[in-house]
This record gives sequence, structure tokens and C-alpha cells, in this order.
Amino acid sequence: MTDFSRADGRALDQLRSVRITRNFTTNPAGSVLVEFGNTRVMCTASVEFGVPRFKRDSGEGWLTAEYAMLPSATHERMPRESMKGKVKGRTHEISRLVGRSLRAAVDLSELGENTIQLDCDVLQADGGTRTAAITGAYVALADAIEYLKAEGVVPGEPLLDPIAAVSVGVIDGHICLDLPYEEDSRAEVDLNVVMQESGDFVEIQGTGEHGLFGRQQLGEMLDVAQQGCTELIAAQKAALGWS
Amino acid sequence: MTDFSRADGRALDQLRSVRITRNFTTNPAGSVLVEFGNTRVMCTASVEFGVPRFKRDSGEGWLTAEYAMLPSATHERMPRESMKGKVKGRTHEISRLVGRSLRAAVDLSELGENTIQLDCDVLQADGGTRTAAITGAYVALADAIEYLKAEGVVPGEPLLDPIAAVSVGVIDGHICLDLPYEEDSRAEVDLNVVMQESGDFVEIQGTGEHGLFGRQQLGEMLDVAQQGCTELIAAQKAALGWS
Amino acid sequence: MTDFSRADGRALDQLRSVRITRNFTTNPAGSVLVEFGNTRVMCTASVEFGVPRFKRDSGEGWLTAEYAMLPSATHERMPRESMKGKVKGRTHEISRLVGRSLRAAVDLSELGENTIQLDCDVLQADGGTRTAAITGAYVALADAIEYLKAEGVVPGEPLLDPIAAVSVGVIDGHICLDLPYEEDSRAEVDLNVVMQESGDFVEIQGTGEHGLFGRQQLGEMLDVAQQGCTELIAAQKAALGWS
Amino acid sequence: MTDFSRADGRALDQLRSVRITRNFTTNPAGSVLVEFGNTRVMCTASVEFGVPRFKRDSGEGWLTAEYAMLPSATHERMPRESMKGKVKGRTHEISRLVGRSLRAAVDLSELGENTIQLDCDVLQADGGTRTAAITGAYVALADAIEYLKAEGVVPGEPLLDPIAAVSVGVIDGHICLDLPYEEDSRAEVDLNVVMQESGDFVEIQGTGEHGLFGRQQLGEMLDVAQQGCTELIAAQKAALGWS
Amino acid sequence: MTDFSRADGRALDQLRSVRITRNFTTNPAGSVLVEFGNTRVMCTASVEFGVPRFKRDSGEGWLTAEYAMLPSATHERMPRESMKGKVKGRTHEISRLVGRSLRAAVDLSELGENTIQLDCDVLQADGGTRTAAITGAYVALADAIEYLKAEGVVPGEPLLDPIAAVSVGVIDGHICLDLPYEEDSRAEVDLNVVMQESGDFVEIQGTGEHGLFGRQQLGEMLDVAQQGCTELIAAQKAALGWS
Amino acid sequence: MTDFSRADGRALDQLRSVRITRNFTTNPAGSVLVEFGNTRVMCTASVEFGVPRFKRDSGEGWLTAEYAMLPSATHERMPRESMKGKVKGRTHEISRLVGRSLRAAVDLSELGENTIQLDCDVLQADGGTRTAAITGAYVALADAIEYLKAEGVVPGEPLLDPIAAVSVGVIDGHICLDLPYEEDSRAEVDLNVVMQESGDFVEIQGTGEHGLFGRQQLGEMLDVAQQGCTELIAAQKAALGWS
Repeated sequence: MTDFSRADGRALDQLRSVRITRNFTTNPAGSVLVEFGNTRVMCTASVEFGVPRFKRDSGEGWLTAEYAMLPSATHERMPRESMKGKVKGRTHEISRLVGRSLRAAVDLSELGENTIQLDCDVLQADGGTRTAAITGAYVALADAIEYLKAEGVVPGEPLLDPIAAVSVGVIDGHICLDLPYEEDSRAEVDLNVVMQESGDFVEIQGTGEHGLFGRQQLGEMLDVAQQGCTELIAAQKAALGWS
Repeated sequence: MTDFSRADGRALDQLRSVRITRNFTTNPAGSVLVEFGNTRVMCTASVEFGVPRFKRDSGEGWLTAEYAMLPSATHERMPRESMKGKVKGRTHEISRLVGRSLRAAVDLSELGENTIQLDCDVLQADGGTRTAAITGAYVALADAIEYLKAEGVVPGEPLLDPIAAVSVGVIDGHICLDLPYEEDSRAEVDLNVVMQESGDFVEIQGTGEHGLFGRQQLGEMLDVAQQGCTELIAAQKAALGWS
Repeated sequence: MTDFSRADGRALDQLRSVRITRNFTTNPAGSVLVEFGNTRVMCTASVEFGVPRFKRDSGEGWLTAEYAMLPSATHERMPRESMKGKVKGRTHEISRLVGRSLRAAVDLSELGENTIQLDCDVLQADGGTRTAAITGAYVALADAIEYLKAEGVVPGEPLLDPIAAVSVGVIDGHICLDLPYEEDSRAEVDLNVVMQESGDFVEIQGTGEHGLFGRQQLGEMLDVAQQGCTELIAAQKAALGWS
Repeated sequence: MTDFSRADGRALDQLRSVRITRNFTTNPAGSVLVEFGNTRVMCTASVEFGVPRFKRDSGEGWLTAEYAMLPSATHERMPRESMKGKVKGRTHEISRLVGRSLRAAVDLSELGENTIQLDCDVLQADGGTRTAAITGAYVALADAIEYLKAEGVVPGEPLLDPIAAVSVGVIDGHICLDLPYEEDSRAEVDLNVVMQESGDFVEIQGTGEHGLFGRQQLGEMLDVAQQGCTELIAAQKAALGWS
Repeated sequence: MTDFSRADGRALDQLRSVRITRNFTTNPAGSVLVEFGNTRVMCTASVEFGVPRFKRDSGEGWLTAEYAMLPSATHERMPRESMKGKVKGRTHEISRLVGRSLRAAVDLSELGENTIQLDCDVLQADGGTRTAAITGAYVALADAIEYLKAEGVVPGEPLLDPIAAVSVGVIDGHICLDLPYEEDSRAEVDLNVVMQESGDFVEIQGTGEHGLFGRQQLGEMLDVAQQGCTELIAAQKAALGWS
Repeated sequence: MTDFSRADGRALDQLRSVRITRNFTTNPAGSVLVEFGNTRVMCTASVEFGVPRFKRDSGEGWLTAEYAMLPSATHERMPRESMKGKVKGRTHEISRLVGRSLRAAVDLSELGENTIQLDCDVLQADGGTRTAAITGAYVALADAIEYLKAEGVVPGEPLLDPIAAVSVGVIDGHICLDLPYEEDSRAEVDLNVVMQESGDFVEIQGTGEHGLFGRQQLGEMLDVAQQGCTELIAAQKAALGWS
């Protein structure tokens, strides 16, 4: 195991370079370009006054999310889902993950009857698109809530502490942080973690399709993930000018 | 916390009564009715000689899964997905989980170029349908592989050690095993674990939409999950006459 | 013609063994498993307070039905309609037949503005799934109306006399009652009859794709069908405890 | 009952005026406009060399049919099925009926590996569209087979004896032939019959949604239907120049 | 270039024979069969009291259009869009063109809150289906507005001056008017023009997929188009009895 | 008319500021971000060895295009087409326009049996998205062909002279070049022109929904469009390093 090294020269527990660009586009209330290395996701937060039917007259707001890949985002172009008339299961799965995660970062009872729609569109994919999406979406959400507060339609302070997400994988027995596509496709175990700065989990998803994983290994992976999320949250705060 | 008790009188770490009925229907190579309390899922394993295009000439087999709910399975009838022309994200997400999990219980390289299609159709839903589906599907898979071996088309021994799945949740701060619908809908944290008898994980998915969870609590939940999976694997083995 | 015998040893005018199990599942107001030999259909009747738009303010109720096959119900697994995004014409045709037939067993003007949704899901198919569905659906309907009456929301007595359905076919020139799949697929003529105990018809559908049929033969087939329906109605009444 | 009369002044057992126009359009091998009173259906038979996969290398041909209504065919415009992305159950049901019926008028084993696609598009609807479609489709089929024979690709004589279809209904207790929309919508019983000149049935479909029907009444309805079909077959023969 | 002649013997700037038949069917408020040579399109105008949501309480009416081809309209039968579950881009494009064009022939502010739905269904296609559709739709529109005025629900005079449409193409360097399919498929340049009698344009669409076109040539094509539209408007007026 | 001025202070015949960024993403063979003022479109050209079935064994290549808007591109968020399961007619129409236009910039017979797939995804919409898409797509196409030539799979020189596209509109009687959304939505006449540097047209589409336009005005609009295209082609050449 002494000879293992990563193709991009990173240490095992090192993130790719992270960039968070606010106001990437101007129409949505929040618009962020997030980059984890070569992975680039445009995360927007659009606001709508009013809530879906199942939330009407609840006094609460709502937040929902959609994730998608542009057809040219991947190395081999993928067919456009709208043209096929079918949304892939993977797309649905990640949209649901992003929505659940970001609802943990907002207090809906403080939002008033407003809806925030997150859109995470992958411009360029190189692994970790879902974790980049969650990390960028928090920043877009913060900007959208700022907008709503400026509009005077939010009764309280709906924004909760930052959350960030990162992947950890096991490659040839080594625990590696923040996998690019090449590593992701051959990882024995793949773990995605969504976390608060406190170290508390919002969501963990670990999969061992090419090999099982034990409690000990899970613990080590969570340690690495926690460190990664801490760094990502620092980047979010810096982007938001909070630090 | 001394006053907490479960509506059905179970201990916190107690499974609902589990029943596994083989040969529930006669057309598929494997057909199992699995019951976790009032949750009832029909798990079938159909075999097809040949593999999908992306596996052709690989010498390997393939396994895939589809999960669905009958419209009358839930307390309030749900619209039929085929009639709406749309499969819900939740359905896709669980189908993918079942497929990934069961591929960890089969050595595709020993299966020959055959395909196993798992179908998990929920006849009655009372929480834990995805964990019951995975647990029952292993038994259907075992029967289907037995059938393929009897047909003489399987070169090796594709069946791996049993896997089972169970849910654990946190309710009013208490860690509870195998949640029925009533508990599931108000749990602060929800964890689904797919495990081998060895205690190694195939998949873990933990979600804290109504509350975060820490490392300590995760550990306790995994302990309870492991105990539940061990009991479920014993039930699988008994149903298969292996014990 | 003296040598003709049926593969399962039945007399030409003999039904397969019929079983009707009430309360098969617990969520819907009526839930019945009906078995005609190896054909098994789960028939449920769900109730909803209120009616579709075209019946609003009519003072009348509504009844509608959906029929479907589980993918593993047939000998060769069939693709799942929800995943294909297309409902087959056969499925539509039978759903419409079941709905029309059962509307003949209910007086909508006595139902109040309530809706009964029948779902007939075939767990195992061996011919006669539509006739089993209709026969079982009547029993589920009776239970659902009993439930509505207990709820106090039904102003009158909406349930009409029992209806049952059976198939008759011509095989090698012989008129046979209640065809299993093997006979159905090679029948020269196929007739489905939905009938009241009085002998009056709700629906008849006769098809001669592999051979025409004359008036004389139609009469003989209807005689056999009437006898079959009479026996099925007796089984319905016994299941409902009416006899 | 002595005072009953039909809105259009016809005798109870009288057809509406029937017109069959061949070569209505020029692209398909057979193209017929059939009119039953105000009901007008364009029936075309297109030929394709080759057969669908399930018939390949069978030495036999295939015939299939599609029925549809133009959106402006009915009194109230109906939404266009292609724009809704959904084909109605009624459309599927009638397409299947037309296909089954016309396959009874062709000997596929004499057709060679050729496919005939029938399209029955309703230009104007006033009841009886399915029976007009079947009656007109036979004439289009005859022309298409003539074309295939002229092309020299048909080994034998695939065309069988004419079939025609007509509706019979019970209105205020009176048996009426060939119902226009106004009668059809209030008929107690509705029977559609597809018949050969011999009087043998291809298909019968009788429905009593607003009232049951007995054996005696069925017999009387079939008598009237037979007379109607005989007249329609005479009209088909005249149009084809066979008489 | 002196030897160029058209397959049907027409002069370069000559229309095919044009026929406009009003009251082609009886259910819609306006129903026209328009023929440009062998191209035949059924154009109907259905009226609905009320407007779509985005026009509600505007005091104005609305007009929309759908264009479609019957599957047997073309030389080779085309799959039916409703059965494929997909509307082709070409169909959408022409529907939008027809709608835009005809909205230029109606003053929505004079229509009251009524909706006119145009349907242009191609019974037989031989090039120029979109231009025939527009030309025929104007006549159907005129009849529908006459109907609305007779109903007393139109406050003003919504019908504007006639518009007509024609195609012009460049074939082997020659500018030809009103192309049939054979010419259309090999034209270097294809121009569709929608025009008022005044010579003012409603819409021009020129495409040079097999060759570019210059300003000079565009001018010559527009001259020919204007002459064609003038003749078509004369035919519309004659059909409407306005001349 | 002396007082007319544009909201952004431009001269009537002045383009918005144009930026063309090559290599915007790294996976496709060509990837360009094109900006016309606030309109931003990501244009990619992906290459695939081989051609669709209808071009197989032709010795020629193929080029096709898809245009789409991200849901957050517009001021009010638009529903995602993939989630609705329906592609809007406008999307189809523009996809077809982009494909037709760019096929005029490539000699398919020199491309070999390779396919170029253009994707034009609008990141931010402020009018002129289709003209920006075409203008940017040419540059992406040039890069993709360069890539194919470097791969040695292109037998000849498929790239033809640059094409560019621009919109011209009439606003309060004034002819304006390159309309932003605010102008576009209230223009009396809207003209899109696709042009080569020579001044020859690839496509012209002029629409007068809120007012007709005469020959004279068309001529003036074409003059302005030609000037705009000339400037855009200069920008393309500069971006490609050709000037």
C-alpha cells in the first residue's frame, strides 16, 4: 500500500480545488457556479410567492430541488432526457437527495408561505456532481433568502447553519476524499456524506457494490468526510463573506 | 424517556413478526411473499437466457430489479403509475437500491450470460417496504439460481452469502428497530441498512430530515440494525431449509 | 370427437376450483383474492368521499375500475407498463369492461356523492383473468358498500344483485367452460359472459379470430356460460355469508 | 309502445343511407370513404413488404389496424390524442376490434410475408363509427390485396368473404338498427355485431350498462343485426363491382 | 435553362388547381376542404365560449391551431403520432406557424372572450400542406366568426382581411410557384409566404439548406409569391361569396 | 419619431456587446460560451464516429442540433421540460432552425461517416437566444471539425464559410438590431436572419403578429441584419484566430 498515489497528485484526504462563484447568472434570486476540480455545477434558487397545494394555509414555506446534467457534460455525450421523454432513475434519486438535504438547512416555519426552487444543472461532470450540487445550493439558498428578506416577505430567519457534502471512496483499499470520475468508477465502496459544521449528519449514503465495508472502515471514512465538509463549509462562508 | 412505549407493544430493538413464504406464485423461477408485520411484498425472480447489450460477450450475467406499490397497498389509495404515465422518483430510487443490494449477493461472473429480473411488488404497505423487499428478494434469488443450476446453464456457484435489510429510526429520541408506517412518518432520523451475516455493510442510507444525527447515535443505530439483520438472515435460512 | 378430454381432467362444462378470500389486505374498504384454478387476482374496492368533476352536484356516486397484470404474473415475464410509459390496449380494454360490468351492480343514485375505485391486479395468470376479476370485484364492492353504510354516508341501498363472469371457448369443436391459458390460446372461438343470477346479461363478448361461430353454437355456449355464472354467484354468496 | 318513432323517421330495422367511395385518396393501396348517414370514416389499407418481428420467417403475412377520431369529428371538439400524449382506452379498444375483425377476412398464410396496415380515421362522428370503420375497411382491404396481387408478391388468394358490422340498440324497449349518436347515448342495451354473409359471427359485443338484456331479446337483436349486415355486404359488393 | 419544364406541365409561376369546399363536415362552426392539386387538407374552426387562463378577464378572445397529418396521407405511410406518444418537431413548427398566421387575420379585441380552435388535418399530402392549411383555415375562420355573430356573442367585427399562403422554390435555378412534393424535395431554396391582399407580409420563411440565396433572388421569389397569394385570395373570396 | 431611444442606449443598428469564449467546457470536441449582452448560450459540438441509420453507407456525415433553456434562464423560472415529459413546440422549432442553419456551414460529403451533435443550452435568456445559439454553434463546429481532422477521420475539408444570425425588429415603427427580451416582447415585426459573409441568406424568418410588414420595410430590415451579421462573423473569426 505504500505505492498508492492518486492520478492528480492529491493527498488521500485532500479536496480538489473548490471555487464558489456567486451571481453567476442574474435572473434567479440566488445563482452560484460551484467547482470541485473539473466538476462544474450551476446552482440556482428561484423564489415564488405562495406554496404548493399540500402546504397551503400551513403558514409554512416549501423548498424543492431538481438536478440534471446537460447532455454534453460527460465525456461521452448523453441523450437529453427531455427528448427521450424519460427522466432517468439516477436523476430522480439525486434530485430527491438534494431537496432533502437542503430542507435541513432551512426552517420552513420561518419562511412564510413562499417556495424556493433549487436547480442544479451540471455543466461539466467529473465525479462528485451531487456533492458539489448540495454544497453550491446552500450558497444559492442563502442568497435567495437574503432576497426574500429584502422583499419583506419573510417573517423570521429561515436560514439555518451551512451544510456541505463530499464523497469518500475506497480505492485499492485506500480511503480517498472527493473522487473524480476516474476514481469513482472503480471504487470498491462509495460514501456520500452531507454534514453540518457541528459534525452532525444530514444524510449518509454508503454503497459497496464492488465490495462490502465494515464498521471500522466506515468510521475511518466518516472521519475523512468530516474533515472535507469542514473545509467546504469554510469555503461557503468565505464566498458569502461570513468569515 | 422512561415512559416511551411503542404502539404495537414491541421492545425498542424488536422486529415485527417476519414471515417468508416461498413458491407464493408458480410462474417465476423464484417467488416469495415476505411479511414484516403488516407490510407484505411479493418478490419474484424471473430468469432470462441472455444478457442486455452492455453485457453481451462478457461471459457474465446480469441482475436488475424493479420495485412498485399496488395502488391499493397504502391506507389512502395512490394513483397507478402506469396510468399517470410517470414513475415517481421514490419508486426509481428504491428500485435502484434493491438492484444494487442484490447484485452484492450474486457473483455475476459465475452466472453465465443469464439475466435475473427481480420484481418487488408491495401488496400491503405499513413501513419498511424497501427493507422487506430486499430481504425477500434474496430468497427469491436463491430459488431462481437453484432453478438455473437445475437447468444446467450456470457454470459455477453464483449465489453469495445472504443479505438482509432493516430500518432503524429515532422517535422522540429513542432508537427503534423496524418502523411501521406510523412511526416512520414521525421519526427524526431514518436509517436503512443492508448487511451480510458477517456484519459487513452492503449499503447504508441515513437521513435526518427532521433532525440531524451524530456519530455516537449512528453507532447505536448500526448496533440495533446489525442485530435485526442477523435475525432476518436466520429467517431467510430457515425458509430456505439451510438451518 | 369422442376422444376429446381436457388437460386438467375437467368435464367440458366444469369450472376450475373457485376460491374467494375476503379481507385479503386490510387498507382498502373491500379486498378480495379470487382464484379460478391457478389464476389469482387481487380485487380491491377503495372509497373516496366526493366524485369526479363530471358527476359533481349530481347527487349520484361513481364507480371506476383499473385492471393490470404484475410483470411476473405470466409464464414469460412481461415488461412493466409503468416503466415502458405505455399502457397496452388489452389493459385498457379490460379495465373498461370491468368498470362497465360493475356499474351494472350498483345503483349510483343510491350511493351519494361517493366514488368507488376498483383495482384488479393479477398476481398469477392462467386464463380467465378478466372473468375472475369481475367475479371477485363484486365481492370487494359489496364489502366497500357495507363500509360506506357503516360510515353513514350512503343514503340508500346502492348494492344490486350479484354479477359474475365466465369464459367459454370452442376447442377442436368442443364447447368448454372456464378456459385456462393453454386452452384459451388455441380456442377457435372465445366468449366472455357477464351475467346476473336471473340469467340476464350484463355484457357478452364473443370473438372468432380463428374461426367463425353460428347462432346455434352461440346458443350452446350461452347455456354453458349461464350454468357457470350460476355456480360463481353461489360462491360469491357463500363468501359473503349470504347463503 | 305504439307511439315510438325514430327522430330521423327510419323504420326500426332500417339502416341509415350507406355510401362507400373507393379511391378516396390516392397514396394508400386501398382508400375508402364510408358513410353511415352522417358518420363518415376514411378507411385506408397501406401495404408494406415484410412483416413484424414476431411473424418473421413464418411464411405468413400480418394485418393490423388503428382507429382514431379527428378532434373536430364530434359535436364538441375533443382534445387531440397526440397532443395529450395519451391514447384513450376507447380508441385502443376499437383499434383492437377492427384489427381482430379484419384478420377474419384475410388468410394470412396466403398473403406472403407482407403487412397490411389499416387506418380508420373518423372525419365526422354520428354513432356507429366502429361498425362503419369495419365495413369500409373490408373494401379498402380488398383493394390493397388486389394491388399486392398486381405487384406479384402474393402467392395465393388471401381475401376471404366479406364481413360487415352494424350496431343494434334497445331504446325505450324497442330494438333499433344502426344507431346515430343521439340514440346511442340513451340506449338501454348496445350490441355491435360483425358478421359474414353466411350469417356466421366474427364478433359480437353486447353491453347493458343502462339495463340488462335476456336471451330472448338477444335473439331478436341478432336477427335485426343479421339483416343489417346482409344489406351492408350487398353495398360492399356493389362498391367493389362484384355484383 | 431554356429546357426546364415542370413535371405537371405548369408554367413556372402557375398555381396548381385550387378548390375550396365549405361545409365539408357539419359539426364544427367552420369546416373547409382545401385542395392545392393533390394536396388535400381539412380545415375546421371550432368555437368555445370562454378563453384559456392567460386570457381570462382580458375582454379579448383567443385563437389557436393544430396541424397534423393522417398516417396514410403520405406516399409511404407514417407512424401515427398519438401511438408513438411523440409529436414531431415538424408538426409543432407548422402548428405554430398556422396559429401565428391566422391570429393576424382576427382582431382578438373584437372577438369577446371566445376561443377559436383551428384544426388542419392533412388527408392527402403532395407538398404545400402548410400553405394550403393556412389558406383553407382563413375560410373556416370566416365561417366560424359568422356563426359566433349569429349566436350574438361577438361584440364587434373580429374578422380582418383575407390572408393566404403559398410556397416558392428554386429548382435547377428556376423560381417555381406552389411546389408539389417531388419538386419540394429537391428544391435548392424553399420559401413560404403568408400575405394579405395588400401585399403586406404576415410571415415569410425562407430556407436554403441545399444552397444559399441572395437579395436579388429573394426579391424575385417574393414577386412570384405575391402573385400566387393574390390568386389564392381571389379563390377564398369566391368560396365565401364575397366576389 | 425623433424621440425614440433604446433602453440600453444603443444606436438602432448597434449590436449588444458580443463575447465568444472557446473551450468553455472540456469534454465536447467544441465548447463555446456565446454572449449577446445578457443572453448567454453554451454551444457544444460533440462528435460520434458513425452516422444514423438513414445515412449509413452513404459515405456522408450528419449534423443535428438540440436547443434548450435551463429552467432558471428566464426571469420567471420555467418548468423543466424533462420533468413535464413534454418538449415545447418553441423548443422543437428552434432546434430545427439551428440544425438546418448549421448544415449550411458544413459539407457533409467531406465529413466522412461521422456525426456532429450540437447542443445549445441557454444559461441566461435576454432575447435573441436562437441567433446567439447559431452564431456560437458555428465556432463550436469549427473546433469539432478541427478535432476530427486531428483524429485523421475526416477525408476532406468539411467546414464551409462562417454563418451568423441576428434578429431585427420593428418597435414603434423603428427598425432595431439585436433585440433584448424587453424589446422583443413588444416588437410589431420580428425578423431572424442567418447569413454568410457574402450576404447570401441561409434562412430568413419574418413574423408580423402585431402588425404586417411591406416589401420596403423588409428591405430595410435586411440591410440592418446584413450589417449585424457581418460584425458577428468578424467576432467569430477573431475568436477562431482567423483574423
